[in-house]
Amino acid sequence: MTYCVGMVLDEGIIMAADTRTNAGVDAIATFPKLFTFENSGERVIMLATSGNLATSQRVISIIKQQIARNEEKTIYTCDSLFQVAELLGAILTATEKHYSEESPSSGVDFSSNILVAGQIKGQPPELYHIYPQGNFISTSRDTPFFQIGESKYGKPILDRIIRMDTPLNQAMKCALISFDSTMHSNLSVGMPIDMTIYKADSLAVKIERLGVNDPYFSKLAKAWGDGLHSLFEQLP
Amino acid sequence: MTYCVGMVLDEGIIMAADTRTNAGVDAIATFPKLFTFENSGERVIMLATSGNLATSQRVISIIKQQIARNEEKTIYTCDSLFQVAELLGAILTATEKHYSEESPSSGVDFSSNILVAGQIKGQPPELYHIYPQGNFISTSRDTPFFQIGESKYGKPILDRIIRMDTPLNQAMKCALISFDSTMHSNLSVGMPIDMTIYKADSLAVKIERLGVNDPYFSKLAKAWGDGLHSLFEQLP
Repeated sequence: MTYCVGMVLDEGIIMAADTRTNAGVDAIATFPKLFTFENSGERVIMLATSGNLATSQRVISIIKQQIARNEEKTIYTCDSLFQVAELLGAILTATEKHYSEESPSSGVDFSSNILVAGQIKGQPPELYHIYPQGNFISTSRDTPFFQIGESKYGKPILDRIIRMDTPLNQAMKCALISFDSTMHSNLSVGMPIDMTIYKADSLAVKIERLGVNDPYFSKLAKAWGDGLHSLFEQLP
Repeated sequence: MTYCVGMVLDEGIIMAADTRTNAGVDAIATFPKLFTFENSGERVIMLATSGNLATSQRVISIIKQQIARNEEKTIYTCDSLFQVAELLGAILTATEKHYSEESPSSGVDFSSNILVAGQIKGQPPELYHIYPQGNFISTSRDTPFFQIGESKYGKPILDRIIRMDTPLNQAMKCALISFDSTMHSNLSVGMPIDMTIYKADSLAVKIERLGVNDPYFSKLAKAWGDGLHSLFEQLP
């Protein structure tokens, strides 16, 4: 399983993804699920994936290959993030079709979900959730975040805290608490956590990794756990 | 959808269930999903159900009918709660089979899950989760609670708080917060909430209902929401 969160807020974009993959509890591995693309101060694009790992990796490989080959239509040549989402939707469904036609009776679920966020110079930051069917939705002022993967355990805290005007550092803190809640309740979501904190109009982005024993994350998780206990005890 | 929680703790048993049923978002209704059976100071049995409403109601009706007809094997004549669980598992699978054989190609999911808890005089309180296949598991000191229905949103707080030695009133408070989190994130779970707080060895039980505007629940939910916000702001 997987847990990824994306947000587009007034100050910029947050993306975060865990790195655990599993095919049964006895086949666990660590793989990145968060990817960034930067085109020299003109655009940044961040992707997070959940679902079938082979499908997700093929989508990322095709994106890179299109760029490397200087093809006419790549995520760097699209006029808008809407077009980027359309292109990714087409690559995703083609990949799913490719695998399922190769082994029609395998019973394997080849589908993936993608969060794609970013900014093109002169345009506002945007975030799209691309479904396995290739269609997609974008965030709004009322719903500024999307989750993919094992989303339910970590949703209540996002629902309570995240607004368009939440500052980026607070939003990141909230995302990490959401990961902590999810990892407490579901073994298939695990550290390290990859994340990007993108400041609007900076057009530059970097993935930061919180490792298994990251001191800030441990401190945050402990403060949150202890705080919940004492808050609970103070309730009427 | 539905959300039900059951716990067996040192002090006794907590059972709680919402009352919303839905067949699509345009077919919402209020039905009880928590039922109690009391046999004059000798045993109490509490049931909570999720899944197909017709199946759940048929199971309850058959239990009542067996008692009314003074049949040889009823939940009042079983020697142990283990046997009660076996009897309920048999009624459940027979009901699912009954409906699915009547309309084999309907595509309807006739399955239900049942939580059954209770105490027979001279025996300890117990709680079983009966699966749609009729098999079941009981709680342990390490895992003293079960959930059925829309369980994920409300699980993190239970994971953090509930231990065998949690006092009944604290456990009930925790269950209500778990309901609050679930109702925040999922429209198909809704008030009123039915609940029982059973003190071990009392062999008497009563369902209490928290209505839509219950002042205690509103106060608790507000205190929890406000407390989460201020706890969040204090985090490092």
